[in-house]
Amino acid sequence: MVNVGDETVGNAEPCVVGVDFGTLSGRAVVVRMRDGAELGTAEHAYRHAVLDRELPDGTRLPPDWALQVPSDYVDVLRHAVPAALEAAGVRPEQVVGIGTDFTACTVLPTLADGTPLCELPEYTARPHAYVKLWRHHAAQGQADRINALAAERKESWLGRYGGKISSEWEFAKALQMLEEDPEIYHRTERWVEAADWIVWRLCGRYLRNACTAGYKGQLQDGAYPSRAYLEALNPGFADFVTEKLEQEIGQLGAEAGRLTAEAAAWTGLPEGIAVCVGNVDAHVTAPAAGAVEPGQMVAIMGTSTCHVMSSDRNETVPGMCGVVDGGILPGLWGYEAGQSGVGDIFAWFVRTGFPAEYAEQAAALGRDAHEHLTALAAGQKVGEHGLVALDWHSGNRSVLVDHELSGVVVGLTLSTRPEDVYRALLEATAFGTRTIIEAFETSGVPVDELIIAGGLTKNALLMQIYADVTRRPLGVIGSTQGPALGAAMHAAVAAGAYPDIQAAARCMGKADRGVYQPDPERAAAYDSLYAEYRLLHDYFGRGVNDVMHRLRRIRAEASA
Amino acid sequence: MVNVGDETVGNAEPCVVGVDFGTLSGRAVVVRMRDGAELGTAEHAYRHAVLDRELPDGTRLPPDWALQVPSDYVDVLRHAVPAALEAAGVRPEQVVGIGTDFTACTVLPTLADGTPLCELPEYTARPHAYVKLWRHHAAQGQADRINALAAERKESWLGRYGGKISSEWEFAKALQMLEEDPEIYHRTERWVEAADWIVWRLCGRYLRNACTAGYKGQLQDGAYPSRAYLEALNPGFADFVTEKLEQEIGQLGAEAGRLTAEAAAWTGLPEGIAVCVGNVDAHVTAPAAGAVEPGQMVAIMGTSTCHVMSSDRNETVPGMCGVVDGGILPGLWGYEAGQSGVGDIFAWFVRTGFPAEYAEQAAALGRDAHEHLTALAAGQKVGEHGLVALDWHSGNRSVLVDHELSGVVVGLTLSTRPEDVYRALLEATAFGTRTIIEAFETSGVPVDELIIAGGLTKNALLMQIYADVTRRPLGVIGSTQGPALGAAMHAAVAAGAYPDIQAAARCMGKADRGVYQPDPERAAAYDSLYAEYRLLHDYFGRGVNDVMHRLRRIRAEASA
Repeated sequence: MVNVGDETVGNAEPCVVGVDFGTLSGRAVVVRMRDGAELGTAEHAYRHAVLDRELPDGTRLPPDWALQVPSDYVDVLRHAVPAALEAAGVRPEQVVGIGTDFTACTVLPTLADGTPLCELPEYTARPHAYVKLWRHHAAQGQADRINALAAERKESWLGRYGGKISSEWEFAKALQMLEEDPEIYHRTERWVEAADWIVWRLCGRYLRNACTAGYKGQLQDGAYPSRAYLEALNPGFADFVTEKLEQEIGQLGAEAGRLTAEAAAWTGLPEGIAVCVGNVDAHVTAPAAGAVEPGQMVAIMGTSTCHVMSSDRNETVPGMCGVVDGGILPGLWGYEAGQSGVGDIFAWFVRTGFPAEYAEQAAALGRDAHEHLTALAAGQKVGEHGLVALDWHSGNRSVLVDHELSGVVVGLTLSTRPEDVYRALLEATAFGTRTIIEAFETSGVPVDELIIAGGLTKNALLMQIYADVTRRPLGVIGSTQGPALGAAMHAAVAAGAYPDIQAAARCMGKADRGVYQPDPERAAAYDSLYAEYRLLHDYFGRGVNDVMHRLRRIRAEASA
Repeated sequence: MVNVGDETVGNAEPCVVGVDFGTLSGRAVVVRMRDGAELGTAEHAYRHAVLDRELPDGTRLPPDWALQVPSDYVDVLRHAVPAALEAAGVRPEQVVGIGTDFTACTVLPTLADGTPLCELPEYTARPHAYVKLWRHHAAQGQADRINALAAERKESWLGRYGGKISSEWEFAKALQMLEEDPEIYHRTERWVEAADWIVWRLCGRYLRNACTAGYKGQLQDGAYPSRAYLEALNPGFADFVTEKLEQEIGQLGAEAGRLTAEAAAWTGLPEGIAVCVGNVDAHVTAPAAGAVEPGQMVAIMGTSTCHVMSSDRNETVPGMCGVVDGGILPGLWGYEAGQSGVGDIFAWFVRTGFPAEYAEQAAALGRDAHEHLTALAAGQKVGEHGLVALDWHSGNRSVLVDHELSGVVVGLTLSTRPEDVYRALLEATAFGTRTIIEAFETSGVPVDELIIAGGLTKNALLMQIYADVTRRPLGVIGSTQGPALGAAMHAAVAAGAYPDIQAAARCMGKADRGVYQPDPERAAAYDSLYAEYRLLHDYFGRGVNDVMHRLRRIRAEASA
């Protein structure tokens, strides 16, 4: 440690590096360990982005596929980490640890040494040899069977996932591989979350992190789904866990190993520094937002919303994504829930429902479409637009767990304006969050406070609506790099600088608490609209009128 | 009659003049009596258009008011009739009769000689002294009481109106006048439909036409609502019928009188020619479209749709606007039903949901917004958009008779495009028409054929959708001046040139029959979507979920 005695003093203090692997790029941030100050960041876009139409060699992909190329992740280590160090003006020797977070379930087949099958020359044209990105949705048939059989057999783990697992997760994607390309399946020696694969690359040791193993791999109370269950799904799948999945579990914030010489060369960081166990972007954001107490729910709001919260209680919350022991913080039960469309819905509306005349006004005022509609909608009283909408344009993740639901707008009249529908959509997503909060509370898991992270925090009207609708004080994360900051905090714990993540969060976490306070009058007005939302929610979402499923079937047949 | 022996021979034949008094203007057409050829037309816009914000002197009007100025109607006689004659190249002596049609219920208070109260100097600043246009909607409170009391007392006439009368009609508007401006009410000597007032101006004789007396004045089996009933509504209203309403009834197509010298001077037509009994724009269109047989339904499709049909059967059809003996053709029961928003809904969508990018494409292709969306939607298979909508953006006239309902779209996804919603709205209005047809048929009144009139006939996709959805051959009227042509036909009957309207319709009516034939495959596909429409129709429209009424109440309170 140097003490240079000038303005760069702060930058001479011990630092950690966090690397956030997103859907299209990776971002590295260099963080001062004492207080979480973000000293420098850099981003590196994946060269192959998302493969959803064809493989690099031109092999065509069916609909709903989404693959990635693992070497793109290593390129982030090579480029973004050194660039972030340089931007921070931090010397490599100051860095005492590195942590990562990843999208999930993003999963790949490898050999026993971690070599991705897609890097074997004989498999470059085989889609199943590649990384299946979280939003690969081609295993829905497998997921349906997994759920049906688990319900039939009353598998004990099913309740931990609100009664349904997703087609995005490890077992559905693996079963699809077995059934569509058995050769690749049989060649697979390890079925590895990318979150763990990148840590393996950094430190040479393969651990499954407790977060993805629990949320995406159905590891509950130390056990995966049983051999008998897997055999009933498909006889060839019986030994999937023992042959390809099982691995030592690493707790979040623990040291997975030390940085290898090879990884030190990639990153420019010192060989031998602490490498933290892998983690997931949403979950790692909770401590970044300082949310480490039971009842502090963090909503990461972007194209979709992920809700994460720790609790000392283990309850079955219908329709949540999962509850995992140590899934967010070791020693607490980590809950995850989500809304599959949020910012995506607002973007869709702007794309399809923003008239030319409005575009001209917005341009004249120097606003983008969202700013313009928000400004027009902000002056309204609650309920003035006369509308109520269902926010299911991209399906419903929680609490209905049904991706075949769709959006609704009720109350349209000849005087309904674009800003009216826009505001109704903002409110509908807030009602969706309230529905999730109520599911927690009625299941005995209190939700006391909301802290929002992600790109949508910049919309103050939206934030105020969430405070009013949920009747809860709303905090806002103090970083635009929540996941990377969270990963860096975990690195600080792994490096031994803090005894646990809670302690790190108290010093390094950043949130402005209670920025938005619920207004009692608006909250009362929203209660009326929320009651309408819930009536429609149950009518369309719980099988009273299954019109949305039928419309999808009709649409599929018509398009066939 | 001259025989000039040249190309104008045809124009030397006997002619009739029809004048259609619309919402914003009047149109005159000069028609050859032999075959209905339209030789010349002219339009004259009302100087005061619709008074819905203030009177000519600046007196402010409350919301939902819509008034007109009666002298504007006389100006149509002065300007449009001579202009049409000139355009036709027809000499006045060739004209043997004049007929008129009007919007309804459009009604005004007059002295015993027909002088409108608003023309008395002391009343120019009194809103209730003016003509109340059909779409004056400020008497809803009175209509609600009229309906509730009639239901309570089991008034026999109520069933003839599908169980509910409208706030647009004569009794509701008169009761509003009594209760809000008793002085004007008491000064009113006659409460006159504009359809009859204009005929009174033409021939000096006041007759109430059988059509408006029945449809808008509840005259059934020779009797109006009883004194006891009116007294129970409001003691001051007890003698409304005997004092202000009752008048000799004129049958449609009958001669009301002869053109006065004054009216001859206005119009340039010969004094003493036949003036036909008044009529209503929608009803007069039926014979103009050649629809004079039971089972031939004419739908006049513009901003809204009016369905008219004659039948030899008198049945109670739930939710229709009315059944009136001789209401369309003397000797048959005339049925009317309607949809309060059709073209208005498509126009609203184009105004609010047509993005800039689409506007640019449309401009490049030389299409207007409707043509562009229609062209984009036309290639779709039935159900391909995955949507179903309710066409209640302007309420529901038939069969629910509820103007506080509102529009719905179900099935929205992130891939839903403007042309998808547009097509779903076209289809929703077709489902609305099918709902009306089914109400007739299940009540024992067969509907065999549809003939469409009005501005929307130019949209071939819409027409084909109506044929497919209703599984009926679709004819199209052969005139763009349906109402004025129909008025002229009635004038020909009044002048004695034809024995009855049926005979006139056979020679002068114009329709291309069966232009659009239902396609069995598409019709079957629409059956599935229609089933969804009906489920939602009953759920939202019949009180299962009264959310639309509650949203309106919330909106009104928020806006207050």
